[in-house]
Amino acid sequence: MKIDGTPWRTIWTEGSAVRIIDQTLLPFRFSVMDLPDEATAARAIADMHVRGAPLIGATAAYGLALAMREDPSDANLSGACTRLLATRPTAVNLRWAIDGLRSQLGPLSPKKRAETTWRRAAEIADEDIEINRQIGLYGLRLIEEIAAKGRPVNILTHCNAGWLATVDWGTATSPIYQAHDAGIDLHVWVDETRPRNQGGHLTAWELAQHGVPHTVIVDNAGGHLMQRGKVDICLTGTDRTAANGDVANKIGTYLKALAAHDNQIPFYVCLPSPTIDWQAANGGEIPIEERSMREVTHVAGLVDDTIVEAQVTNPGSPAANPAFDVTPARLVTGLVTERGIAAPSDLESLFPERTAAE
Amino acid sequence: MKIDGTPWRTIWTEGSAVRIIDQTLLPFRFSVMDLPDEATAARAIADMHVRGAPLIGATAAYGLALAMREDPSDANLSGACTRLLATRPTAVNLRWAIDGLRSQLGPLSPKKRAETTWRRAAEIADEDIEINRQIGLYGLRLIEEIAAKGRPVNILTHCNAGWLATVDWGTATSPIYQAHDAGIDLHVWVDETRPRNQGGHLTAWELAQHGVPHTVIVDNAGGHLMQRGKVDICLTGTDRTAANGDVANKIGTYLKALAAHDNQIPFYVCLPSPTIDWQAANGGEIPIEERSMREVTHVAGLVDDTIVEAQVTNPGSPAANPAFDVTPARLVTGLVTERGIAAPSDLESLFPERTAAE
Repeated sequence: MKIDGTPWRTIWTEGSAVRIIDQTLLPFRFSVMDLPDEATAARAIADMHVRGAPLIGATAAYGLALAMREDPSDANLSGACTRLLATRPTAVNLRWAIDGLRSQLGPLSPKKRAETTWRRAAEIADEDIEINRQIGLYGLRLIEEIAAKGRPVNILTHCNAGWLATVDWGTATSPIYQAHDAGIDLHVWVDETRPRNQGGHLTAWELAQHGVPHTVIVDNAGGHLMQRGKVDICLTGTDRTAANGDVANKIGTYLKALAAHDNQIPFYVCLPSPTIDWQAANGGEIPIEERSMREVTHVAGLVDDTIVEAQVTNPGSPAANPAFDVTPARLVTGLVTERGIAAPSDLESLFPERTAAE
Repeated sequence: MKIDGTPWRTIWTEGSAVRIIDQTLLPFRFSVMDLPDEATAARAIADMHVRGAPLIGATAAYGLALAMREDPSDANLSGACTRLLATRPTAVNLRWAIDGLRSQLGPLSPKKRAETTWRRAAEIADEDIEINRQIGLYGLRLIEEIAAKGRPVNILTHCNAGWLATVDWGTATSPIYQAHDAGIDLHVWVDETRPRNQGGHLTAWELAQHGVPHTVIVDNAGGHLMQRGKVDICLTGTDRTAANGDVANKIGTYLKALAAHDNQIPFYVCLPSPTIDWQAANGGEIPIEERSMREVTHVAGLVDDTIVEAQVTNPGSPAANPAFDVTPARLVTGLVTERGIAAPSDLESLFPERTAAE
């Protein structure tokens, strides 16, 4: 999407260089970071200069391409895969990208490996963009239906399921960008999304850069706005969707889904199909990560143009930090995938090959 | 309640001096502030060195006592009332305290005014303590019932309806302190309560000081904890309760009430009867204050032992800041008052004089 009027991706190549937007400094500094070698690419993932499952997968693929350019031996192929996999042990797309490349590269002669990896990394990035674009086209119809009533469309979103979490378009934001680019009059309520503030930091930044009207609110405010008729539709992303349509997403999503349901507001979840966990029968089987309490007690912010980490809770008080919650399928109006939109109970209908394979 | 083992109030007299705990510096600094004269008392209210409706009322009464000690003339009585009323124009208890004192003092000879005001201010403080103690005794029974099942009681609270908002005990915290002091094994989930963080700042501080086990969570986390059976009861305060039992309270209360209802967890609201607005038929008639967007974009915190205000949203992105929301009576299990506990639909039964007066 656009930054200050110019189209960007979160990862790209320029000649023989791989470059990323350094997301650790956003929204307070915009900075491009070079990934000259595998070690830097691995650090960029581990230290969260890039984040978001699809972007992590693409960065790892480019990391392996950089490793193969330097030394395409069997030993380095094996070592690089191990090192890259260790950067974010629980990232599904990371394992998918690296495992896929390893089995593709293994049988090849070393001198063909660099070129193959390079090409496949570009494909992974392009595939991600195309999946998200398709999600956006389906989601666009939902926004068009509301706009047809002849008034501005108010959309609420939670966390950052934005283009910064992918290579381009984002998931929950893809329908928003498509609608905005199509000239639909819309406005986005951006949940701050404590504890890591990805909404107030990243979603607000990317919407502002692309020129999409938006307003940041604290996570507490969405229910009230829905009660007062100020939200027409909720669009969120998801980290993992169970086979029955239960959705695991950033902590707090469940509360917004409850409020949407209580106020008869449609609540849609946007997801690329690789994030469907067909092995999980329901949301109860999805593990919920408990993260560092420092993410609750401290916040990144700006003081006198310096980026700081401020303690914002009573010093000495303990904190708990469950990172995700599960929104039951009964609260979800529909799941927006690259294959179309399905009711949560009917997700399998979009993926007939699933049933055929069983 | 206790600070570091010693009992305190939020406002008290020592000889001829009036003293308060300076709440602008909490939880990062503990500091006592002298109110030597009416002007300082007025500034303490206006600049929020004291906050919370009951404490504002008591501070205003002491402010008038200080004014009368200096100059008990009709002119100064009238002037001091006007100046004190202007400190927080919408505070109900402020108007109640000052209007009551003005009508009491008007007929008195100037030389009797100082002593009368001084005595009445002490009564106002003592009455507040007694109301909150009674709320606590009724609420204690709810906690005892859960504790009787033989396991620790997990309580979730939102914002600061604590002793810092009153003269002592607090409203929502009063049952908690009573239960803790009675030796009941309990633990409090403290909602951070963005945007002003009164939960993470003040509630966490006062529970820590009194030795009550607690854990700070972001406002997003409560729903998940309820889903996982980690909350036995919710206790909140309220700024205003409508005649039908709808409750206006700090923004986000509605979301927690929805989650409690969805998980069959009792949700009780603790309130002194002066905060019931019998004129408001339902919550829709309660105006919702829209406060400064700076409360959303900036957070008070500690960096290198210095108190700072950090910007925590994308610079340039607008923010909205509705300060309260309305929790419909249907989501409230009961209202805990100094007269006892009532179902929201049955609030009038505790106040028969209301019906008699009509």
